[in-house]
Amino acid sequence: MTIDTRPSMVTTGPITGSRKIYSSPDASPDIVVPFREIVLDPSSGEPAVRLYDTSGPYTDPSVRIDLEAGLSPLRNGWLARRGFADADCRPVQPADNGFAEGARLVPPCPAPHRVRAGGAGQRVTQYEFARAGIVTEEMVYVAHRENLGRAQLAGAEAALADGESFGAAIPAFITPEFVRDEIARGRAIIPANINHPELEPTIIGRNFLVKVNANIGNSAVTSGAAEEVEKLVWAIRWGADTVMDLSTGRNIHNIRGWILRNSPVPIGTVPIYQALEKVDGEPDKLTWEVFRDTLIEQAEQGVDYFTIHAGVRLAHVPLTASRVTGIVSRGGSIMARWCLAHHRESFLYERFEEICDIMRAYDVSFSLGDGLRPGSIADANDAAQFAELETLGELTKIAWARGCQVMIEGPGHVPMHKIRVNMTKQLRECGEAPFYTLGPLTTDVAPGYDHITSAIGAAMIGWFGTAMLCYVTPKEHLGLPNRDDVKTGVITYKIAAHAADLAKGHPAAQLHDDALSRARFDFRWQDQFHLALDPDTAIAYHDETLPKDAHKVAHFCSMCGPKFCSMKITQDLRRDAERIAGLEQMAETFRATGGELYRPLET
Amino acid sequence: MTIDTRPSMVTTGPITGSRKIYSSPDASPDIVVPFREIVLDPSSGEPAVRLYDTSGPYTDPSVRIDLEAGLSPLRNGWLARRGFADADCRPVQPADNGFAEGARLVPPCPAPHRVRAGGAGQRVTQYEFARAGIVTEEMVYVAHRENLGRAQLAGAEAALADGESFGAAIPAFITPEFVRDEIARGRAIIPANINHPELEPTIIGRNFLVKVNANIGNSAVTSGAAEEVEKLVWAIRWGADTVMDLSTGRNIHNIRGWILRNSPVPIGTVPIYQALEKVDGEPDKLTWEVFRDTLIEQAEQGVDYFTIHAGVRLAHVPLTASRVTGIVSRGGSIMARWCLAHHRESFLYERFEEICDIMRAYDVSFSLGDGLRPGSIADANDAAQFAELETLGELTKIAWARGCQVMIEGPGHVPMHKIRVNMTKQLRECGEAPFYTLGPLTTDVAPGYDHITSAIGAAMIGWFGTAMLCYVTPKEHLGLPNRDDVKTGVITYKIAAHAADLAKGHPAAQLHDDALSRARFDFRWQDQFHLALDPDTAIAYHDETLPKDAHKVAHFCSMCGPKFCSMKITQDLRRDAERIAGLEQMAETFRATGGELYRPLET
Repeated sequence: MTIDTRPSMVTTGPITGSRKIYSSPDASPDIVVPFREIVLDPSSGEPAVRLYDTSGPYTDPSVRIDLEAGLSPLRNGWLARRGFADADCRPVQPADNGFAEGARLVPPCPAPHRVRAGGAGQRVTQYEFARAGIVTEEMVYVAHRENLGRAQLAGAEAALADGESFGAAIPAFITPEFVRDEIARGRAIIPANINHPELEPTIIGRNFLVKVNANIGNSAVTSGAAEEVEKLVWAIRWGADTVMDLSTGRNIHNIRGWILRNSPVPIGTVPIYQALEKVDGEPDKLTWEVFRDTLIEQAEQGVDYFTIHAGVRLAHVPLTASRVTGIVSRGGSIMARWCLAHHRESFLYERFEEICDIMRAYDVSFSLGDGLRPGSIADANDAAQFAELETLGELTKIAWARGCQVMIEGPGHVPMHKIRVNMTKQLRECGEAPFYTLGPLTTDVAPGYDHITSAIGAAMIGWFGTAMLCYVTPKEHLGLPNRDDVKTGVITYKIAAHAADLAKGHPAAQLHDDALSRARFDFRWQDQFHLALDPDTAIAYHDETLPKDAHKVAHFCSMCGPKFCSMKITQDLRRDAERIAGLEQMAETFRATGGELYRPLET
Repeated sequence: MTIDTRPSMVTTGPITGSRKIYSSPDASPDIVVPFREIVLDPSSGEPAVRLYDTSGPYTDPSVRIDLEAGLSPLRNGWLARRGFADADCRPVQPADNGFAEGARLVPPCPAPHRVRAGGAGQRVTQYEFARAGIVTEEMVYVAHRENLGRAQLAGAEAALADGESFGAAIPAFITPEFVRDEIARGRAIIPANINHPELEPTIIGRNFLVKVNANIGNSAVTSGAAEEVEKLVWAIRWGADTVMDLSTGRNIHNIRGWILRNSPVPIGTVPIYQALEKVDGEPDKLTWEVFRDTLIEQAEQGVDYFTIHAGVRLAHVPLTASRVTGIVSRGGSIMARWCLAHHRESFLYERFEEICDIMRAYDVSFSLGDGLRPGSIADANDAAQFAELETLGELTKIAWARGCQVMIEGPGHVPMHKIRVNMTKQLRECGEAPFYTLGPLTTDVAPGYDHITSAIGAAMIGWFGTAMLCYVTPKEHLGLPNRDDVKTGVITYKIAAHAADLAKGHPAAQLHDDALSRARFDFRWQDQFHLALDPDTAIAYHDETLPKDAHKVAHFCSMCGPKFCSMKITQDLRRDAERIAGLEQMAETFRATGGELYRPLET
């Protein structure tokens, strides 16, 4: 095994056919929100199509990327006005990087990083601001970001928003006040650690666009820092709204530093992984002190949300005894092991209020982990899973009471007919806190294709109300995903999320589909490619059989060939119908005017 | 362009980890049904897993494959007993192969082929036999084939069959009489032309396993005979239950001959394509006579089902005028064009009873085409689509009255919230005739990934009641699928079909998932691979990072590494829990016996 030391190169430049633009709300010219825009062929007579853009400065050719300097800290001004004190920063310890030394130590990211912490009586979290009736810059930012295309709809919203939202409250237009209200109700979160100023804020909630998370992270078996930063940049290029760094092994601390300083999207982690590394990988040796120290270490670095498996209680473990696949969450199995070894209640559960207080001080959002999610169709919706969900509901209320933002993790492996109840129960138990699910996979029989088995479940649960979908790659159950797998996973989940947005009736969601369909019908091949979620693949597939430039304006493709293209036949038919209709109208006029053969030119 | 002349090589040999077995119903030892079986590692203590097998003799190493000789005509004996006359065979004409000559002419398949036709008063179709209360050999065959695994369930059916079937009537066990009854009610079909004796019969209906169709066929732009036969063999290897030959261009007749004589699965076609070739690709020149002649030509060759776009009526065409993507069915656009050009009702509609009489004489099943299916999210569920569906309902009743088997084609592009009504309306309008849908695609924004956008819709509509799903490949909208695309499309649709079977509550469907999940939890990697829909891809993905033989028994993979494998931790936990429980039981015994430290050996 070799370890990369320093990330030096990542993918930059615009997505094929797109350009970066920036836009500000009328009332807040200082809030600058990025979008990507696809300019269509002039023959279309259509305006450019504006899309949500998660890719950060990497797709803006005018920005110089320097991983050692990190991204520009766009939130610094906002945060400065909130008057946070500099934290009494915890020094990095050899254990944080698994005692890696010399050539095996990934050097720390040299980008400057000021560490802030909120004080006891001070408002820190978006939840606290929202409850106090204060609209933050982050709220203004996400409102503008979400409104994407809604302004141009004008009166047409009703016609487009014909979805079924299962009781969600999707507005025609998103105001900063609506965002504040949703956060205050606990129905949405903006994961935004005050130590992650490089963040371009995003909102996760049932009444907003469905989001996608991509997991990256090395394992002890493979991959290093350069690869992980490139995976981050690559994942957000294709549309990941948040990224979880699930690294284990050595160098965790320093790899995370490189990721955070260069990430425009919220970064999530599972702190118990690093805590376990600090006790030699032996769950029985875990202590509250080691865990607490890890929370602070990561909060100071700027992690935006933590998965905390506090719902895995001692009493739940026996409920998994007859399962086909036991406990399949890493964090869940670690905590179950700890509980059983010590025959004690989980310290995450017992110390939950202390955890809240630490996370509140930096505005680290909770992602309450589903450590007992089912790992097979056989185990779906069982007693263990639902017992944990009920505990998560209890913990949600505690976290809110202590000022924290909360979302809830969900399954897993669930056959289609058992998906809906997961959503309904989650909404009820957890007071409508955002749901964040992994798939679910709708069958177990297709390892190698679990991005697909799970995209089916993800689209459905997204439609039912899940706020964020955690991607699954083709390598699930088989190995660590590589760069190609990350892209396939992200694109697959963008499909699921967008299909859900359409079905929920998100105003403006269908604008993208319609623009692409019109391009398709008009044989504007380039427009069709550029509007695709993955233009490069669309072009490559088309060009495999018809590579010439002339084919990009041809009224057919190799699927049906020129004579059998239904769209071409329809176009000809419409043209002829107009001609025929024109003739009939002439005949009508002829009869109406008493049979005069020539009519004077109309003036 | 070059044209291949003769198919010589196709993929043979077993699927990795599977072996071919044959089994007969107790009551009918002469009916021999193929399955594939996966023998598990002895450590599992589990019986071999038996799976439905569409791959024909190609995966049986004991069968010698000779494409020039064709497959063994297993139905010849059954058909002989029904006493059909030899048909007064229509001679092949130069137009049948697009006037291809010399080196450009694909030679005919030399396999012997006796052409039969049913007489006027004679029972020919499975529908006619079923209505007469007669159970055919085909019905016995499919009953045994469908029962797969149900016998071993014994009393456990109730526990497994916990699905939601939306009013379907899925039995615990499938008897030949149940099959007959379903066919007699028009709720299922066995596409089985009496001129396709090589067929291994399969049943398509809402109360049976969800089936998958793969489209193959050259277009004028690319591919020839060898490639098409290999696509057939390749598609059924991965699970296609039927294959449609959508060839256009030259050599249609001879390519189809090679396909039919070597196909164990039902072959469908769209005869209007070949009819159009015979009139130089100009829809206006189509006549009833050319079409009729093409029906007979193809029926004599042995095509099992015809897509007939008789629902595209003159009055429906104006309903498509304001669509975003017009008419996207090739057959639909051809017929719309013809109707408009002649300003006449469609000859397919006017001559429908004559078409029925031709198809009945060979037992060619109807696949009533949805020529006006939506080609975009914008056009889903519109007036044109539903007007055609109502016409298809009317035609279904006529076809039944004339003894024919019927299924109904469905969309297309439909957002998730509009899928269900397609199924409900189809069942109502078409008297529960089997529904056969193309996807539907749930969004238009992902060309290059339309196998996925459509698998979401396909799984859902399969759950709701669609009997057969027509696959969509990654090349949809972009070009003609190649061999890899065919495999990806088929596997993706097997996932959708199986997810639907699980959700409908098909008894025994979950046996496959459970066997794989147990293998996964036990780290029986080889078993997990062999039980996968695509073992080769699962192995390749696993071996990308952990290629050694030792890794095939390792209690981890590279996704999480050895320390973080949740399944390993759970296994350790269970082992320790047993040990701890064992100790506690000993302590209990100790106390119960009054504190005696040593107990005599129990005898």
